[in-house]
Amino acid sequence: TAIKLLVLPGDGIGPEIMREVRHVIDWLESRRGLSFDITEDLVGGASLAEYGVPIRDEVIEKAWAADAVLFGSVGDPKWAHVGFEKRPEVAILKLRQELGLFANLRPAKVFDALVDASTLKPDVVRGLDIMIVRETVGGIYFGNPRGIETLPDGSKRGVNTEVYTTSEIERVARVAFDLARKRSNRVCSVEKCNVMESGLLWKEVVTDVHAKEFSDVELSHMLADNCAMQMVRNPRQFDVIVTGNLFGDLLSDLASMLTGSLGMLPSATLGAVRENGKFPALYEPIHGSAPDIAGQGIANPIAQILSFAMLLRYSLNKQEEANMIEQAVSNVLESGLRTADIMSEGMARVGTSVMGEAIVRE
Amino acid sequence: TAIKLLVLPGDGIGPEIMREVRHVIDWLESRRGLSFDITEDLVGGASLAEYGVPIRDEVIEKAWAADAVLFGSVGDPKWAHVGFEKRPEVAILKLRQELGLFANLRPAKVFDALVDASTLKPDVVRGLDIMIVRETVGGIYFGNPRGIETLPDGSKRGVNTEVYTTSEIERVARVAFDLARKRSNRVCSVEKCNVMESGLLWKEVVTDVHAKEFSDVELSHMLADNCAMQMVRNPRQFDVIVTGNLFGDLLSDLASMLTGSLGMLPSATLGAVRENGKFPALYEPIHGSAPDIAGQGIANPIAQILSFAMLLRYSLNKQEEANMIEQAVSNVLESGLRTADIMSEGMARVGTSVMGEAIVRE
Ligand SMILES: CC(C)[C@H](C(=O)O)[C@@H](O)C(=O)O
Ligand SMILES: CC(C)[C@H](C(=O)O)[C@@H](O)C(=O)O
Repeated sequence: TAIKLLVLPGDGIGPEIMREVRHVIDWLESRRGLSFDITEDLVGGASLAEYGVPIRDEVIEKAWAADAVLFGSVGDPKWAHVGFEKRPEVAILKLRQELGLFANLRPAKVFDALVDASTLKPDVVRGLDIMIVRETVGGIYFGNPRGIETLPDGSKRGVNTEVYTTSEIERVARVAFDLARKRSNRVCSVEKCNVMESGLLWKEVVTDVHAKEFSDVELSHMLADNCAMQMVRNPRQFDVIVTGNLFGDLLSDLASMLTGSLGMLPSATLGAVRENGKFPALYEPIHGSAPDIAGQGIANPIAQILSFAMLLRYSLNKQEEANMIEQAVSNVLESGLRTADIMSEGMARVGTSVMGEAIVRE
Repeated sequence: TAIKLLVLPGDGIGPEIMREVRHVIDWLESRRGLSFDITEDLVGGASLAEYGVPIRDEVIEKAWAADAVLFGSVGDPKWAHVGFEKRPEVAILKLRQELGLFANLRPAKVFDALVDASTLKPDVVRGLDIMIVRETVGGIYFGNPRGIETLPDGSKRGVNTEVYTTSEIERVARVAFDLARKRSNRVCSVEKCNVMESGLLWKEVVTDVHAKEFSDVELSHMLADNCAMQMVRNPRQFDVIVTGNLFGDLLSDLASMLTGSLGMLPSATLGAVRENGKFPALYEPIHGSAPDIAGQGIANPIAQILSFAMLLRYSLNKQEEANMIEQAVSNVLESGLRTADIMSEGMARVGTSVMGEAIVRE
């Protein structure tokens, strides 16, 4: 039976880089005998323009029905004036929360061919391979009470609440420990337990899960401010990092920028396994919608293509096909093709579609 | 009349680097005719050991009575087992809150002589000079409700609350705009207004203060995750950054690590101006207590000495003496002396006291 995909290109460069993935999918259908049943829909600014909301309930239902969601990116300065409830970002936040996508996996990897793209010295980042596991349905992103209230004297008070429960921490910790076993077997748990009780609970629960279920994995703890420093000082000390929603937001962006090639980095966000053995999952590039270069045909499609490879690997267990795509990307880079964002001297500068075609050909 | 200083060396390397500041003070007394009335007391682990609490009310009172507080650093793994209320960090948190020290000024500056100490490429960080203004008595550090509660099923729930009011944001924004006028006249305000209402209020209030009082200063806004990336991608785009307590904690540590020489960076935390024209203020190095090298006589005393120079500049308006100290530090570096943390080939490696003496001699 056909694999059901929901494809949500979103805003900015989303549609043009997603087009290149469609070529990869076509190839897999004609050459590898896979069969995809693809539904495409609007999210973010694109959905606001058409329907007046950043995401429709119907799209959430389609996401539930799909084997996996392939997401582009949302966000467009054009919609900066809409209210807090309507901003394009609501699309991704709602997908995460409604599908229970609690574990965001963000690899930060330095490709040998691109080691010079980093602003850090090559000796500091060569071979870097960090996996950040970020909790994505809890913490201060979703806690209540929240909002802005007007005080009697006319001034205002803005409030958000960070909440974490034992079970929320346990499940994301398990994902991190599981992943570590397939990598270098080390997990670093990050919080601010010296200031926040929610961080103290985080540390206790991670310590507990480790002792009871994963004592073969090496566990360390680090304060979030120190982690930000250590990422700059010596990022290769890390294997898997597990952290909450807000710290994960900053630290994963920081980690990806260490590679100097954001346009290369995919991510996966996974939910709980259901009775039928399936789990909801969404795959998206780490980079944003890049409105400044949208529509020019110069965006790098690799992160979106590698997100699709992650989808094949995690949601569909198609290891061979995932490897083929990753190898093709690597070969094309070795051959010297570069989009503008990763361009360096002596390489051949190409646009979105030439890069996409080259990967399909490989 | 004598200048009243409260000196709080704290834990780890605190006492040994503070000793070098005392030599600088002696020199100022004998050669520049200044007169200091110095009280020294215990905080952090040192206070826990002696009094069973991280800071005594008496010390807070002494801090109120002083013209300024010179702080070393707190934190000691020996005290990891004490409860949340007793941890050494409470000393600095309580000083900030009780004295109303709401604006933490953290310069991140690359010294020409040390540009190679950074893990970033010299071309990316040469001449870097960022001033982070971090709010330090509000936000999630102090908001209520907070704590860990046990749920009916025995599992737990950890909660912290981020709160910002109009007036809290206004006063720290003014400090940032004021500083920008004396620098490159640019302020970047950082929050997560796309996810947090407290961040939305932050952005609105900063925009307001700017329009009403500082429209000559250039203001931009940036999301905290993007800011973490931009600091790695192109840190020299920033002049003054103003942000809340938690983001400021991470981003200022990140910014200081860009310089590669944490042991060089001072900070000031300032409170509101009182009726007598004075304001409470605390000066401390950015680096921590570094328990791993404490007592070995190898710690870099420069951040502590430069913190004292900031004290002379901001609290006592002794610009000339502050300049003398900063110039002396710069000359000693040019002459090739280096403590272990900033050592590089061809330089002369020295310990804490030789470095301190060299600066006094200069
Ligand atoms: C778009 C935004 C709401 C989102 C977040 O803050 O989680 C983004 O920055 C991310 O990291 O996926
Ligand atoms: C010691 C700790 C409580 C403190 C903080 O988190 O504010 C420190 O990291 C700092 O930045 O001064």
